[in-house]
Amino acid sequence: MKVKELKNGLITSPLGFKTNALYCGIRSKKLDLCLIYSIVKAYAAGVFTSNKVKAAPVVVDMQNLRNGYAQAIVINSGNANCCTGNKGKQDALKIIGELSRYLQLRKNDVLIASTGVIGKFLPVGKIIKALPELVDGLGFDKAHQTAKAIMTTDTYPKQAAVEVKIKGKRVTIAAVAKGAGMIHPDMATMLCFITTDADIRSPVLKKALKFAVAGSFNCISVDNEMSTNDTVIALANGLAANPLIKDKSKEFKIFTRALEYLCLKLAKMIVSDGEGATKIVRVNIHGAKTKKQAKQAAAALAGSVLVKTMIAGNNPNWGRILARIGASGVSFEPERLKVSLQGKLVYKNAMPALKNNNLLIKLLKKKNICIDVHLGNGSFGHTIWTTDLTKEYVRINMEYN
Amino acid sequence: MKVKELKNGLITSPLGFKTNALYCGIRSKKLDLCLIYSIVKAYAAGVFTSNKVKAAPVVVDMQNLRNGYAQAIVINSGNANCCTGNKGKQDALKIIGELSRYLQLRKNDVLIASTGVIGKFLPVGKIIKALPELVDGLGFDKAHQTAKAIMTTDTYPKQAAVEVKIKGKRVTIAAVAKGAGMIHPDMATMLCFITTDADIRSPVLKKALKFAVAGSFNCISVDNEMSTNDTVIALANGLAANPLIKDKSKEFKIFTRALEYLCLKLAKMIVSDGEGATKIVRVNIHGAKTKKQAKQAAAALAGSVLVKTMIAGNNPNWGRILARIGASGVSFEPERLKVSLQGKLVYKNAMPALKNNNLLIKLLKKKNICIDVHLGNGSFGHTIWTTDLTKEYVRINMEYN
Repeated sequence: MKVKELKNGLITSPLGFKTNALYCGIRSKKLDLCLIYSIVKAYAAGVFTSNKVKAAPVVVDMQNLRNGYAQAIVINSGNANCCTGNKGKQDALKIIGELSRYLQLRKNDVLIASTGVIGKFLPVGKIIKALPELVDGLGFDKAHQTAKAIMTTDTYPKQAAVEVKIKGKRVTIAAVAKGAGMIHPDMATMLCFITTDADIRSPVLKKALKFAVAGSFNCISVDNEMSTNDTVIALANGLAANPLIKDKSKEFKIFTRALEYLCLKLAKMIVSDGEGATKIVRVNIHGAKTKKQAKQAAAALAGSVLVKTMIAGNNPNWGRILARIGASGVSFEPERLKVSLQGKLVYKNAMPALKNNNLLIKLLKKKNICIDVHLGNGSFGHTIWTTDLTKEYVRINMEYN
Repeated sequence: MKVKELKNGLITSPLGFKTNALYCGIRSKKLDLCLIYSIVKAYAAGVFTSNKVKAAPVVVDMQNLRNGYAQAIVINSGNANCCTGNKGKQDALKIIGELSRYLQLRKNDVLIASTGVIGKFLPVGKIIKALPELVDGLGFDKAHQTAKAIMTTDTYPKQAAVEVKIKGKRVTIAAVAKGAGMIHPDMATMLCFITTDADIRSPVLKKALKFAVAGSFNCISVDNEMSTNDTVIALANGLAANPLIKDKSKEFKIFTRALEYLCLKLAKMIVSDGEGATKIVRVNIHGAKTKKQAKQAAAALAGSVLVKTMIAGNNPNWGRILARIGASGVSFEPERLKVSLQGKLVYKNAMPALKNNNLLIKLLKKKNICIDVHLGNGSFGHTIWTTDLTKEYVRINMEYN
């Protein structure tokens, strides 16, 4: 199986997807409203935040996806429409209602997503006023604007596309994502919209999506925080005219692996754009007793402010890794623990293992950091990608509201 | 029952405790070695870190406390003697051996504590060379120096003393503590040494100590990190000549409450000196289904970098509180949740409850911040004291090694 990544892949790379974005007045003079549209009805699937506090658009989409179809997704940035009670839900439904009228679609074939500040009501009037222009301007050439319109604290737009052959037919899958803070493993973790011209029905698409999310967006962490709006939605419009991708088939595997490849690419973009981040950190846990313990240890390290400030400071104070692993609740014998930083063994037999710190300090100045922890207690492993923690992260989040 | 706090309470305020501190060359030109000494053998009890990775002095003290007695505690700052394997343990025992010779004590009546960087061997030679001077200089007037000698990133020394009457006899309890980072609830969380002239045997003293620690040091959080060296040790030398304090007696209650009062005072000092902290935040959880869930919700908020940067920025972005509680794994119905900031209800009925943000923004500028979360799911509550998260915290921990 081969996944071919497209140069300059766009959310509109698969056949039959149009998009448009504009400024409607939510954010200050930045693109803040966009639409992703399939020219034919598409099978659809979604994965959403597991936060008990779910934003209104998440609740609405979960309902609208029950029939397994969708044809349009409207997304605003600058306001999360979360903690807004029944009014928030009515606001989302009102926008969907108006948009479905302009697009001549059934209401439950329109999805909605919001990102931005929590606890403020959506400026529904501004959004509805902008809908005719948003629909009129739909085109195959507006993907860049859409990628920008969903950004909040992101510093650059994130989209990509891949291509696979399904029984001789070329199938394209593309994704656009946003996310730079409130990123934590084991939650859907951001907004991501996936378009594909594959012919694949929604239950099978959902299975592929869940698998791909588990190996990508659920393996990244910026700040240990889980958003109320996390959403990954995939639309599959079938225009590639491939033979239908059936569950458990060889083609299902090919499609799923391609989807995972794409999601992992976007996930890494999100990490590298983590708020204030100057480094990308790969945390590898080895030798855990169970998969759950491997995940737990990885999440503990990826969530440690002391480990993350250590990385930010090119600081070889690896004792913090030990302290955090020891506090993680994961079972191991300190005597069997091994820790490596940048491939250099720093701790073994309950003692420092590195004679000379100078090489390590030099290696820590690189942008890509790798932490390996061998628990010596079994055969399970897990990897999480995360960032360092900088003064800039603190500045951004002191001010953001 | 009345707890009387002494003005300028010192670790030497109880009868029969001497101390000394000096610079032996571990830190750069700062007091880094000290000794707390009872002129008579004392009953002793300790509470230690629950981290799987325990520093050598913690392991040694747990052994030496088995007989329930101690008469001296030697403490160094600048080096934690942790992750130093068997050599670390031998180093601690060597220092204890030499010191017990100078003090003419049995080896297991001497305790040791270390704080500072992890993963470096103690400069044993420097410490042993300084021991004769340390012992010769013991006095009733050196408490200030000792409080300084145990500091690492602390910006001020922390000690206090209280007085209670036990059947007509005046009993004094004093404590000195250090700690500004790696502070997290449900662990012993720092170094604290308690001296008292009360007559109380070690099993009863230990019970009182556990109770006091649960209501004080285990209710504070600076950065969600658990140290490998956390130690609270109490020495009771009986010189107050009170009738022996027996378990379950009225006097036991009086003593325990006084000890808790003292520990809470030190705990709050630690929080207010949290690395880079500009605010003290009291997180109150109400209406939880169980005590465990109340603690879990409080710890989730106190550990949230987004909540803590929000506080640092006087930022009324309370949606972050909701997002964190929703992700905490605690059970509640969003519709029954109520959240107050500075006593002002901001969220109720799944909607924003505050019409005017201006007063809230003004109230958030205060140094003392109070967050109240009513889960509406039961009758259990919990309180944690924590700090904001600032650029200064990041700076300190980028550089500290």
